[in-house]
Amino acid sequence: MILKRWLVGDPLKTAQAADQRLSKTLALAIFSSNNISSVAYATEEILLVLVLAGAAAIAWSIPVSLAILFLVLVLTISYRQIIYEYPEGGGAYTVAKANLGELPSLAAAGALMISYVVTVAVSIAAGIAALTSAIPSLFAHREALGLVTILFIVIMNLRGVRESGQFFSIPTYFAIGVLSLLVVVGVVRSLYDSKPVPPAMGLNGGLEPITLFLILRSFAVGCSAVTGMEVISNGVKAFRAPESKNAATTMIWMSIILGSLFMGVSWLAYHYGVLPKADETVVSQLARLTFGNGAAYYAVQIGTMILLILAANSAFAGFPHLASILARDGFMPHQMATFGDRLVFSNGIVILGFFACLLLVLFQGDTHALIPLYAIGVFLSFTISQSGMVHSWLRRKGKHWREKLLVNGVGAFTTGVATIIIATTKFWDGSWIVLFLVMLLIMMFRGIRSHYKAVKEQITLTRDSRPPRPRHNLILIPISGVNRSVVRAVDYARSRGGDIKALLVDVNKEETALAEIQWAQWGCGVPLIVLPSPYRSILGSIMDFIEEQRQKDPDCWITVVLPEILPARWWQNILHNQRALMLKASLLFKDRVVLTDVPYHLTR
Amino acid sequence: MILKRWLVGDPLKTAQAADQRLSKTLALAIFSSNNISSVAYATEEILLVLVLAGAAAIAWSIPVSLAILFLVLVLTISYRQIIYEYPEGGGAYTVAKANLGELPSLAAAGALMISYVVTVAVSIAAGIAALTSAIPSLFAHREALGLVTILFIVIMNLRGVRESGQFFSIPTYFAIGVLSLLVVVGVVRSLYDSKPVPPAMGLNGGLEPITLFLILRSFAVGCSAVTGMEVISNGVKAFRAPESKNAATTMIWMSIILGSLFMGVSWLAYHYGVLPKADETVVSQLARLTFGNGAAYYAVQIGTMILLILAANSAFAGFPHLASILARDGFMPHQMATFGDRLVFSNGIVILGFFACLLLVLFQGDTHALIPLYAIGVFLSFTISQSGMVHSWLRRKGKHWREKLLVNGVGAFTTGVATIIIATTKFWDGSWIVLFLVMLLIMMFRGIRSHYKAVKEQITLTRDSRPPRPRHNLILIPISGVNRSVVRAVDYARSRGGDIKALLVDVNKEETALAEIQWAQWGCGVPLIVLPSPYRSILGSIMDFIEEQRQKDPDCWITVVLPEILPARWWQNILHNQRALMLKASLLFKDRVVLTDVPYHLTR
Repeated sequence: MILKRWLVGDPLKTAQAADQRLSKTLALAIFSSNNISSVAYATEEILLVLVLAGAAAIAWSIPVSLAILFLVLVLTISYRQIIYEYPEGGGAYTVAKANLGELPSLAAAGALMISYVVTVAVSIAAGIAALTSAIPSLFAHREALGLVTILFIVIMNLRGVRESGQFFSIPTYFAIGVLSLLVVVGVVRSLYDSKPVPPAMGLNGGLEPITLFLILRSFAVGCSAVTGMEVISNGVKAFRAPESKNAATTMIWMSIILGSLFMGVSWLAYHYGVLPKADETVVSQLARLTFGNGAAYYAVQIGTMILLILAANSAFAGFPHLASILARDGFMPHQMATFGDRLVFSNGIVILGFFACLLLVLFQGDTHALIPLYAIGVFLSFTISQSGMVHSWLRRKGKHWREKLLVNGVGAFTTGVATIIIATTKFWDGSWIVLFLVMLLIMMFRGIRSHYKAVKEQITLTRDSRPPRPRHNLILIPISGVNRSVVRAVDYARSRGGDIKALLVDVNKEETALAEIQWAQWGCGVPLIVLPSPYRSILGSIMDFIEEQRQKDPDCWITVVLPEILPARWWQNILHNQRALMLKASLLFKDRVVLTDVPYHLTR
Repeated sequence: MILKRWLVGDPLKTAQAADQRLSKTLALAIFSSNNISSVAYATEEILLVLVLAGAAAIAWSIPVSLAILFLVLVLTISYRQIIYEYPEGGGAYTVAKANLGELPSLAAAGALMISYVVTVAVSIAAGIAALTSAIPSLFAHREALGLVTILFIVIMNLRGVRESGQFFSIPTYFAIGVLSLLVVVGVVRSLYDSKPVPPAMGLNGGLEPITLFLILRSFAVGCSAVTGMEVISNGVKAFRAPESKNAATTMIWMSIILGSLFMGVSWLAYHYGVLPKADETVVSQLARLTFGNGAAYYAVQIGTMILLILAANSAFAGFPHLASILARDGFMPHQMATFGDRLVFSNGIVILGFFACLLLVLFQGDTHALIPLYAIGVFLSFTISQSGMVHSWLRRKGKHWREKLLVNGVGAFTTGVATIIIATTKFWDGSWIVLFLVMLLIMMFRGIRSHYKAVKEQITLTRDSRPPRPRHNLILIPISGVNRSVVRAVDYARSRGGDIKALLVDVNKEETALAEIQWAQWGCGVPLIVLPSPYRSILGSIMDFIEEQRQKDPDCWITVVLPEILPARWWQNILHNQRALMLKASLLFKDRVVLTDVPYHLTR
């Protein structure tokens, strides 16, 4: 508990919740890092595919990047509309639930949950790659570094929303600043540069021909650049009033920053003929070419790393929030909706951290291996979300509905096509896993909901329920001898009166005789029943007696008061209470039998 | 439960215990297999060491075997004396406890427990090696085969002593028969054989010179032949009356069989120039040379395998018995002394099976790797046992004490020298592990005893203890709403009367208001206390209230009656009762607070 307080801080009152709202500057830091940080790997992923077709194919990186820039534009306009329509926080799940029904909304929810986990894993892997590009000796430790970073983020988030925002906003702007500097200096230099573009070295023919499929594949992995576009629309409620307007403005800023940085990096990579390497990122190579090996280079690497860590952090705002909405609708366990004492959904934060660590370990901290899992989930939710809006305009009509329908229609169509491209070109690389998991999650959501529904039906009081009439209660105290713990249990039982009996199973004549003598002195007048035990089974004899009493009066309660020794140290439990444990297990499913442990605390 | 009955049979009455005694024939089958089965690997282990010094060293196998034969003779005479002196079962632990004090007796107990585990692992590994020598295609599956065999033996033993004896006696005599046939036919042939001894093929110089150390090492591993000599003396009680006489006779028979088979195999191996191979045992090679590849060969292999499995089985009689003696003396958890419903110490059987499996997996089912762990523990207990007898004769004197002292003195000296040889020559091969574990076990034994002692002091009623005077009991029912499970808990609480109050933590104004209205109808007149909760912590508010009540009346009991939903399937628990679990954990160490779960059983 003390450790918890030190790590996550003192509890906050419910009334303090309103104060936790974010200014635009803070919100941009928290919500945009996911999106903007993809600059660190998106260009590299595109090049990694094109490089398979040799030097000539590299030129295709520019049109592919432009296609992705178009996606950014479409998504920005579409999501601004969603922000205004759903000021309560219009994630894909909310929009789909309102407009398309349960199945699409659950598909969107499942896809989003997976994306959040992958976001953390990809961002941390890429962030550590930025670090190991600058300090190659850390390359061997990238997995451990990633896990430590995730743990750090989890703790920070358990401390609460606003503190995370303050903690992270300065480095975010630092990161955006240095990356912008890299792009601006690089582009300006390249314009005045008279030396020709170096040919992509060591590349001639390539392994594959330049096919439409290859270019679509490079587009598919490049789509990882637009992941995180939806984060702001999920979190409108976290903005200061006027929420929607502030959120929409922040959205535009985010898109402008993303678009210029992404196109800048793609252009520079093409201009300098930079190719992906196993142990150094494309951004790191560009920074070296632009700034040399000085302080500016290290600033870019540190900035990139920080931005990626913040990207991972942004998922820790989104995932628990989505889980809490699902929990309120009965699709996730109730405890996901419980506000922790720091006004955050602690359960969701811990679960996200766990699965992200798992993913990082499974994929050995390799960004490229994780990318195929990434875009598909995000685009699936984009498509569902936009389709939901289209459906909404068609049904509701209202002011300017044709223009709005057009915007979301273009959005739905574009993201739909992208989803199909990603699903088909990267199916065996990982899309199938995500699609399979989405199906599993849908089944889980429905299973949980139907369980809660069944429980509710079973426990809800109806008009024809009657208050129960008072019943008899037989109190049994099983003992194996007379000692302080037994005397304590008898004391407890007698403090309420009623029909109390002690039970002793006769496994050893001498011990039984001794116990009977002691009982006369310490039993406080409670009758002692000695049960025979031909099979030496203490448990069996007690269970038989209880069953007999249950049969005798089919309406009575039976309370088993169990004297239990509670050792001073937890491991000492293995030396005690084995029988009590067996008795508890046997009684658990007996109707009308209630067990009461009376612990006797040992001090050493 | 049904599975258990089918696997281990119906429970037996305590009165049936006397019938479970063994005749000499059955006892020989159960107690001697451990000892006699070492014929299967002892010669091979001697050769494996000597072979390092090349062909010339092989001749040393005969004198080394003769030295071990001398050990057999000494141990037989010494242990016969122990059998007569300790008819209650004179294991090394009992003898040392009576004569040498606590530390040596615990050392003997620890050494024996380890030996039992190693016995199972070695015997099963060697038994499977006999099988895979005959059917090489099974070699790859030896680990799995070993584990399945151990599981089978565990189940058989859980069925009870006599049934194991009957089940195993015919194959034991079959195995002894075919091995004797092998030795007799082999030796007779070798006498009429005019062809010269084939030189140990492929061997010339050897890797090491023939040193005393090498010969002592071969003696050390050869000592694995006499393991199991003590088993009969541990189990005198299991014989039919007159127990000691029957046990002593059985002991002689066992030694004669062991001695002749072991010397026979060593002689044949030397005569035929057989050398150890990785995938075929020495006995298998001898059987092929003697009988060809016909039915007789397979009979030898099957016989050897069966004998080794029975050897493993014998440890399942010894280990639980030793554990139960230790438990009665307070050095092991009490439950080790609990007779199962088939009149066997079920806990000991299961624990031995578990550790034997663990060892088999750790050493990948390789006999040679396990052997260094084996002899040291056995010889340590031999030495302690014999020294105990020496001490006893010196103190008690009595009839013929000089002769008896001489017998046990020779026994103590011989086994002591052997122990030192084994400990020094095989120290880094595994003796150190055993010596270390023995020390750990001694610490564990003492820790357990001192804990039980402390507990006894704390719970024993003394003269000045007074029966407690009746105290007040406040019954609290924490609820989060009104439903059937809550009504059931109220029903239960009211069945005993007393000062009952329901507690509702106010986290949501609307829900609280609704609950208050419903309580008026269903609360049966029990007062409802609404607790404020500024920090949304339901747990915290309840704990605060309980603490307050505890302070108010420092002498009263507080009973927390917790309405709990018991789902139909275990995994559904994750969807319920998280708060109940937290509450239970928080209340566990509060003095005078007793928790009562009132389960409401869901049906779907």
